[in-house]
Amino acid sequence: MLAFGNDYSEGAHEKVLGRLLETNMEQLPGYGTDDYCKSAKEKIKKACGCPEADVYFLVGGTQTNQIVISTMLKSYEGVIAADTGHVNGHEAGAIEWSGHKVLTLPQKEGKIAAPVLSDYLSTFYEDENHEHMVFPGMVYISHPTEYGTLYTKDELSELSAVCSQYGIPLYMDGARLGYGLTSEGTDVTLKDVAEYCDVFYIGGTKVGALCGEAVVFPKGNMPPHFVTMVKQRGALLAKGRLLGIQFDALFTDDLYFEISRNAIATADRLKQILKDKGYEFYIDSPTNQIFVVLDNEQMEKMKKEVVFGFWEKKDESHTVVRFATSWATRMEDVEKLAALL
Amino acid sequence: MLAFGNDYSEGAHEKVLGRLLETNMEQLPGYGTDDYCKSAKEKIKKACGCPEADVYFLVGGTQTNQIVISTMLKSYEGVIAADTGHVNGHEAGAIEWSGHKVLTLPQKEGKIAAPVLSDYLSTFYEDENHEHMVFPGMVYISHPTEYGTLYTKDELSELSAVCSQYGIPLYMDGARLGYGLTSEGTDVTLKDVAEYCDVFYIGGTKVGALCGEAVVFPKGNMPPHFVTMVKQRGALLAKGRLLGIQFDALFTDDLYFEISRNAIATADRLKQILKDKGYEFYIDSPTNQIFVVLDNEQMEKMKKEVVFGFWEKKDESHTVVRFATSWATRMEDVEKLAALL
Amino acid sequence: MLAFGNDYSEGAHEKVLGRLLETNMEQLPGYGTDDYCKSAKEKIKKACGCPEADVYFLVGGTQTNQIVISTMLKSYEGVIAADTGHVNGHEAGAIEWSGHKVLTLPQKEGKIAAPVLSDYLSTFYEDENHEHMVFPGMVYISHPTEYGTLYTKDELSELSAVCSQYGIPLYMDGARLGYGLTSEGTDVTLKDVAEYCDVFYIGGTKVGALCGEAVVFPKGNMPPHFVTMVKQRGALLAKGRLLGIQFDALFTDDLYFEISRNAIATADRLKQILKDKGYEFYIDSPTNQIFVVLDNEQMEKMKKEVVFGFWEKKDESHTVVRFATSWATRMEDVEKLAALL
Amino acid sequence: MLAFGNDYSEGAHEKVLGRLLETNMEQLPGYGTDDYCKSAKEKIKKACGCPEADVYFLVGGTQTNQIVISTMLKSYEGVIAADTGHVNGHEAGAIEWSGHKVLTLPQKEGKIAAPVLSDYLSTFYEDENHEHMVFPGMVYISHPTEYGTLYTKDELSELSAVCSQYGIPLYMDGARLGYGLTSEGTDVTLKDVAEYCDVFYIGGTKVGALCGEAVVFPKGNMPPHFVTMVKQRGALLAKGRLLGIQFDALFTDDLYFEISRNAIATADRLKQILKDKGYEFYIDSPTNQIFVVLDNEQMEKMKKEVVFGFWEKKDESHTVVRFATSWATRMEDVEKLAALL
Repeated sequence: MLAFGNDYSEGAHEKVLGRLLETNMEQLPGYGTDDYCKSAKEKIKKACGCPEADVYFLVGGTQTNQIVISTMLKSYEGVIAADTGHVNGHEAGAIEWSGHKVLTLPQKEGKIAAPVLSDYLSTFYEDENHEHMVFPGMVYISHPTEYGTLYTKDELSELSAVCSQYGIPLYMDGARLGYGLTSEGTDVTLKDVAEYCDVFYIGGTKVGALCGEAVVFPKGNMPPHFVTMVKQRGALLAKGRLLGIQFDALFTDDLYFEISRNAIATADRLKQILKDKGYEFYIDSPTNQIFVVLDNEQMEKMKKEVVFGFWEKKDESHTVVRFATSWATRMEDVEKLAALL
Repeated sequence: MLAFGNDYSEGAHEKVLGRLLETNMEQLPGYGTDDYCKSAKEKIKKACGCPEADVYFLVGGTQTNQIVISTMLKSYEGVIAADTGHVNGHEAGAIEWSGHKVLTLPQKEGKIAAPVLSDYLSTFYEDENHEHMVFPGMVYISHPTEYGTLYTKDELSELSAVCSQYGIPLYMDGARLGYGLTSEGTDVTLKDVAEYCDVFYIGGTKVGALCGEAVVFPKGNMPPHFVTMVKQRGALLAKGRLLGIQFDALFTDDLYFEISRNAIATADRLKQILKDKGYEFYIDSPTNQIFVVLDNEQMEKMKKEVVFGFWEKKDESHTVVRFATSWATRMEDVEKLAALL
Repeated sequence: MLAFGNDYSEGAHEKVLGRLLETNMEQLPGYGTDDYCKSAKEKIKKACGCPEADVYFLVGGTQTNQIVISTMLKSYEGVIAADTGHVNGHEAGAIEWSGHKVLTLPQKEGKIAAPVLSDYLSTFYEDENHEHMVFPGMVYISHPTEYGTLYTKDELSELSAVCSQYGIPLYMDGARLGYGLTSEGTDVTLKDVAEYCDVFYIGGTKVGALCGEAVVFPKGNMPPHFVTMVKQRGALLAKGRLLGIQFDALFTDDLYFEISRNAIATADRLKQILKDKGYEFYIDSPTNQIFVVLDNEQMEKMKKEVVFGFWEKKDESHTVVRFATSWATRMEDVEKLAALL
Repeated sequence: MLAFGNDYSEGAHEKVLGRLLETNMEQLPGYGTDDYCKSAKEKIKKACGCPEADVYFLVGGTQTNQIVISTMLKSYEGVIAADTGHVNGHEAGAIEWSGHKVLTLPQKEGKIAAPVLSDYLSTFYEDENHEHMVFPGMVYISHPTEYGTLYTKDELSELSAVCSQYGIPLYMDGARLGYGLTSEGTDVTLKDVAEYCDVFYIGGTKVGALCGEAVVFPKGNMPPHFVTMVKQRGALLAKGRLLGIQFDALFTDDLYFEISRNAIATADRLKQILKDKGYEFYIDSPTNQIFVVLDNEQMEKMKKEVVFGFWEKKDESHTVVRFATSWATRMEDVEKLAALL
């Protein structure tokens, strides 16, 4: 079977796994206090251009969203997200379980537009009854979005400005950040992310690690007693080394970016093939997720040889499907897929 | 000032208050175990045509919604509501605070249509990834809705059928139930409500009581250890008599219905006046809430003599406002308001 | 039946109910924004000697404990209480439901001693692993305690000093505060309470009101957006007047204190009778709760004519029971009880 | 430095890591649905003698406790634990964050005695006011306990009988289960654990894995929609293979037991050395944790060459410290430590 179903089908990049192997029998202190965690944090701070940042490693994406959001919001606040946002629809209510509402905004290609956000906030505060409503306390965006799309630097800057005006943090879910930063034509760098966001995470699970996400508080604004709240939410890893060593490897010699580029290169090739063959795209995604319309009959036939994702029904006889590439996708598998299309 | 701002401006109906006065020095057991609570429950069960029902008295509407929803849902479930539903927008996140998501559906005049619900549910279960999503565990409707509109008996029956098909309870928020049941032309009776809903509450706060809502589980389906969960949510009243005596009075000699009719009669008169004077209605509401468009200048002038509610901006020079009548509204005040219009 | 089972058997004091009756048809704004609430708050602030205090009215005791504690604690904090504290054992886990741990200390006659508190706090911070533990974020005491006992002014002052040293608020549950303040021989005044506590509540439910507790933040330290958090916890009363009018009456002409004295006078008389008859006291309580040892046979006989509370088994043939007096207890009923003893 | 501070200082056992390496580039489905997870589950079920068991892999111990407890308890229930239980004191309030109280019982050497449990439960149900209290809904024990002690088969059987009588599940925290099962002289086997407990977990983090705990529901009694609740609590691992492959290795050729024996052998040797040298033991622990009293001066000197844990002050000049061995402890390091003692 050809695997284009998602970006977490393989284990870890060989250099990442290699470092785990090399360091395996070293005796290290627990809970993320070891030197590999420290080293990884320093490398990430440098890559972000934020010497004063706080960096914290967590295991998975939903966990990270739940922890960041619930530790930064006040009790009476909710988090604003696109209605297509991962926290709204695909995390089994993890945010609500922590006591907070997801306040949804309409989106375009998975993105929140600054004027839409601004209108929402001004309307909220103008409402005489807003004391009976959930206060907007944070803005959640994903980059790349759930549709594989990207914010431009200007769009991020505008969102950031609206957030600043209302005194609420801008949070970026970077589960696939590597693929966003290495996408052809993006004008957004990691340093830009660190400049415009108040908190974000650099996804490891989907970009070369066995597991792990690096949360960055670029202004040194990690909530006090964060470790205790991580423990309280069941997310403190005893062998924190597992995360530190992996991120240390990923941020050595630009490995994170280098392997991300493979996902982009293979996705670009696949898009070209699909375009040449006249397939209809559901959305124009510049990263590692490709949304394309298949005839149902063809789809069923392909399922026997390729793993890909169901996205939604288009009409009675057509379906939108998703092909995803990753750091591990081999170009030869793209060519094999091409032969089947 | 003429008071048309809401339906909770006065204290309690004189017969309700009279009974509190008469029974005041009786020594009664606490926590709703007294004979007045028992008597009130029996009267309500009779009015509902449900001898096997469980009835429980709570203090306020948001509290009731939070308790009913959070005690009937399982951890992994959320409650479906119209996006205009009170639980979604105007309860400060009380449902989310209890750990559950409000799953919103588009509405028409505040109502959820059975086919919309049915589509939502079938789509949910067809989604391969629904294990990563919040399960729909209950349907919340309000009757009258937040727009003062009413479901027909057929509409309720259809919603009930969809809920049955998926094995989830139908819950009716009846904060203004009296005004719905006595509205001209409705074909829905209290017995119908008890037949089609799995749980509902009969609002007291807005219909003649100082406070209090009567939750009815028509099939004797009150969750086990409900009292303990009420206590846990901070809602167990020591002097439960305060609620029992009031509802006992309201359900003696049909007082609840009789006083509800006053709200309808005064609202109907006011609607006729507005119609005659050529005002534009925002929505056609058959109960005690009237949504009408005012010229901003006129609105400002009226504010000096009448209390009414802001609903939303219509355009630069017009505003939608709400006039509410209640059990306590005097027809002479309607005529005074007419003179100002 | 003679009613000595608790202090909430009757409705409200006649002056309190009278004011509800007189003001019943006044049209007032909702949610505690009416003038009676304002007036009551001013009177309470004056009685507390705290012109800058914030006062907020809630419906019941467990609700108040849950709201005060959960809105003042940070996510990683718990509340310290005596293991006999009401929040620990008799509120069905209301504090835990809000996400916080009750950290228990050993008590003496229901009271926490300052050195015990101080030891606990210093040990906590000395523990190398305290980041993996619940941080102590508040101290909860009750006055009178669950055993009817009282702190002295010195004891309160010492507790307050320890709390200040560690930067955590001291919270007093005053469900029966009136009975504590009017107890013979106490040197603690309402002004002392306001001086030594960071937040406390003045109980109405057990002292002359139908329902209602007045939370006082003596230093104007009510948490921001408290109203929204009250709504979120299902505790915002639409007809806030119900609480405001009652407390306005209770704090007019010292009514609260005057009626509290009746509970003390009747309790003192009953204690004298018990002493004279040679009964063994379980604890020496100076307020309205009397804990006394009864022979089981006698206990069963008395149950037919008197309502009183079971406290705990003493041995195979004896039981500790509780007699409670209140603002409403008639001296003639005490004499009737005497005849039965 | 000699590492005796805890049992999670190294990475994973080489055979475990080896399997991760060998399978690294296989393309597997996510979320624990891969064949390695399936294989590991089958092996565990076989080792437990429970063909009908449900097995689920989670990442860490506190996470596992939070998830098992909060998904099995009803809203109105709490979990009974020894006051020294890990869930009570060292998980930062993770249970309370999930809305449930930890109901503490006095312990002896970290263990709950069946008669103590039985008394607690009978007293609870005899209490007339138990509806206002947290219902006991589960019993949590750890084996080995926090003191390294072990239940006997009879003790487990008795606890199990009390739990059955009251219809509540018995849950065993097996963070160090391997060290308990391979301890000299224990009469408790894994099959016994599966027979007497309703749910338990087999710890991987402290016994040879990088991370991971295997929850076993021996009677096929995993709560419905468990996966969704795991996701909701932020604990669903995208690359579930990381856990499946590790446990598959650990339960191949009895590796889990074989490596556990190393911890016991090295601990036994260390205990013999300490005994021979006349050290005072704080508790007689038969597993991999050794609690011994050190003179403070000696302790400070040793700290320069050995990592060990502070447990508690004994008196002004003595301290209780903990030495822990593990699957990775080398006998030569024990001898080096001996030389320092």
